[in-house]
Amino acid sequence: MKTILIRNALIVTQDESRRILKGDMLIEGNRISKIGEVSDSADTVINAGGNAVLPGFINTHAHVAMAHLKGLLDDISLENFLEKTFLLDANRSDKGIYNSAMLGMAEMIDSGITSFHDLYYSEDIIARAASRFGIRAFLAWNTLDDEFTTQSGSPLKNAESFIRKKHGDLVTPSVGVQGIYVASDETYRGASEIARKYDTTIHTHLSETRKEVYDYAAAHNGQRPVEHLLEIGFLDDRLIAAHSSFVTMREVRQLAKANVKVSWNSISNCKLGTGGMPPVPEMLDHGITVSLGTDSNGSNNSLNMLEMMKFSSLLVKNARWNPAVMNAQKILDMATRDAASSLRRTDIGVLKEGNLADLIMIDLKQANLIPAGPDNIVQGIVYSANPANVDTVIVNGKILKKGKKLRRKIPETEKEKMI
Amino acid sequence: MKTILIRNALIVTQDESRRILKGDMLIEGNRISKIGEVSDSADTVINAGGNAVLPGFINTHAHVAMAHLKGLLDDISLENFLEKTFLLDANRSDKGIYNSAMLGMAEMIDSGITSFHDLYYSEDIIARAASRFGIRAFLAWNTLDDEFTTQSGSPLKNAESFIRKKHGDLVTPSVGVQGIYVASDETYRGASEIARKYDTTIHTHLSETRKEVYDYAAAHNGQRPVEHLLEIGFLDDRLIAAHSSFVTMREVRQLAKANVKVSWNSISNCKLGTGGMPPVPEMLDHGITVSLGTDSNGSNNSLNMLEMMKFSSLLVKNARWNPAVMNAQKILDMATRDAASSLRRTDIGVLKEGNLADLIMIDLKQANLIPAGPDNIVQGIVYSANPANVDTVIVNGKILKKGKKLRRKIPETEKEKMI
Repeated sequence: MKTILIRNALIVTQDESRRILKGDMLIEGNRISKIGEVSDSADTVINAGGNAVLPGFINTHAHVAMAHLKGLLDDISLENFLEKTFLLDANRSDKGIYNSAMLGMAEMIDSGITSFHDLYYSEDIIARAASRFGIRAFLAWNTLDDEFTTQSGSPLKNAESFIRKKHGDLVTPSVGVQGIYVASDETYRGASEIARKYDTTIHTHLSETRKEVYDYAAAHNGQRPVEHLLEIGFLDDRLIAAHSSFVTMREVRQLAKANVKVSWNSISNCKLGTGGMPPVPEMLDHGITVSLGTDSNGSNNSLNMLEMMKFSSLLVKNARWNPAVMNAQKILDMATRDAASSLRRTDIGVLKEGNLADLIMIDLKQANLIPAGPDNIVQGIVYSANPANVDTVIVNGKILKKGKKLRRKIPETEKEKMI
Repeated sequence: MKTILIRNALIVTQDESRRILKGDMLIEGNRISKIGEVSDSADTVINAGGNAVLPGFINTHAHVAMAHLKGLLDDISLENFLEKTFLLDANRSDKGIYNSAMLGMAEMIDSGITSFHDLYYSEDIIARAASRFGIRAFLAWNTLDDEFTTQSGSPLKNAESFIRKKHGDLVTPSVGVQGIYVASDETYRGASEIARKYDTTIHTHLSETRKEVYDYAAAHNGQRPVEHLLEIGFLDDRLIAAHSSFVTMREVRQLAKANVKVSWNSISNCKLGTGGMPPVPEMLDHGITVSLGTDSNGSNNSLNMLEMMKFSSLLVKNARWNPAVMNAQKILDMATRDAASSLRRTDIGVLKEGNLADLIMIDLKQANLIPAGPDNIVQGIVYSANPANVDTVIVNGKILKKGKKLRRKIPETEKEKMI
């Protein structure tokens, strides 16, 4: 079993009491085996030199295989964006999906994301890419009504078949539903049944735009999407609902009662001009677990959790005209331990003995982080850090980035090879 | 005269017709001497390998000597923030100001900012730091009424004395006024006189917070700050007004008519929860030149123009629920050519023969920028790039960053040495 020893780090544990420790960390195989003073030798020794070590970020809403779309769908209306995206999505090759997914994974690792939660078709191909790249992947096969899909075969059957297969240590398969505008009650119920049968989470888009909410309500006697999904039994503690921007306080209470998790995608929502600020403070007050999602490169246009944290924090402070409405610690929680908990995992998102070795090292000796120490390291990570500070990234005990360099080359860089 | 040849670049000129050229660039001394196919040899040859070369970013509102305050003033109310900042500012040593300014300059160069426009006291010390570091500095000595200042001597006299001195090629001195809450008509008029006498720009905070605007109006029969400053002759084409968040459409017209320039500080305004969205689309419609300012590390908390561009763009799209309200090209203009024009300069902010050699090279071969080419390079820079992509930075013909490494070490890193 390979061992890695990280010496002399400022360890931002993100544990129950948010301890920040000075010390060493020993990784044996794919697990953290010791935190504190470690006198053991190891196969690989990393001298952290006082730099910060923290849990890798967990991105709870992505479409990683759209990585090649960055810079191609900007500054246009949402309708135009969706039309173009649909056309681009409909004619892809397996190789293109694989290559684009590898590109997205490289970007995520580069900026310190060690786990992501995806929603797409062809998740079997993305699973292969994730295993090859070495990133932890929570992959939800997207479903929608047969009449709307570009998948071959029935989306629900495809999803079940994907979940039944083995995909290796790093991949956790699950089922998704695209959204209320293309999914009937039968599709929602079918997805719920699959999730219960195989004990998985469910991933969905929920009330992302004003239009989808009001179109639905107009066609259904004023009933709103959350209310309807509650009625048909779709809302439960397996569900991670991306966006949830257009929800009333009544719906916030319904989501909270059903123990639904929310993935907040501030950058994508702002970029598309669809109304970027869900009632997150109220969600938190009602006990909803909120995490952060990048969404795809088509609408973000980066997969960068450091940027997500700063931007989300600024947005809520601005929306409420209150700089104290949400502090840096809460934002860091959303990107780590709260995201893990949304995915029903306690073995990632927190650095403690026995947990999986998914972690990153942040270089505190660059100008944009000086002066950073135990008193302000959390603020430094949330408000000042950028991917140039991400020195080392370890997933499942394997070093994927070291000395600011990705260890894996991105296999294909031409746009045509990612379609 | 030293020469630098940059070969095989994608040159984002930011010229009148926003040409993007494939080719070479020759720098002789501190000027760009050729763009196109260059067959000359040179002292230093940089093979750009298809990477992007663009004008260095120009930050039009900074307090660079507050660089050591990052991560120390977060998530607190504005009143608390101002009180703490005032105390921290009042007891500084010359050495502390110098060291902190060097730190801020290092962060700016690292993220591609080649010129900054500062507002502070002790600008003579900051001028020394800028000359030493090699960054282009537009330094406005801040004035306010004698009764409020912590400066020794009279701020207006200090400002005039600063402007009269020689500070070297890289430094352009000017005068500033802190804001309406600490400046009488006499101070405003005194600053205007100095600016006219020495033909400089003027730098001020204008209508940053709702409180300052309404406090002023309440004490002055409902007259708002812009209206008053127009009345006393302070508004003219020399003025760069930072923030300008709380202005009515009537004031927008007044600012436009007086040809005042606005520095938009979206991140700082959001972080402090003071209302982050000035009526920028309306300012642009009225012909006002708008540029971007980071403000200080105390309220931002980074000096990163790539982040400023993305965030500002997202904020306005979100505020207007319209993804097409401002495109990537306009945002890049604000950070380069429009900022130069605000500072009354045509020899920076645009890459053309004869202009000063202030430019940066962006590495397009990293995952977060693939695929980037002539068709989407501007979107790539604005929506996807981060400081890890800034490979090379040249100011006044001198290479300050190369191969992603700053050439100058930051002299002091302990917080105590920056106070």
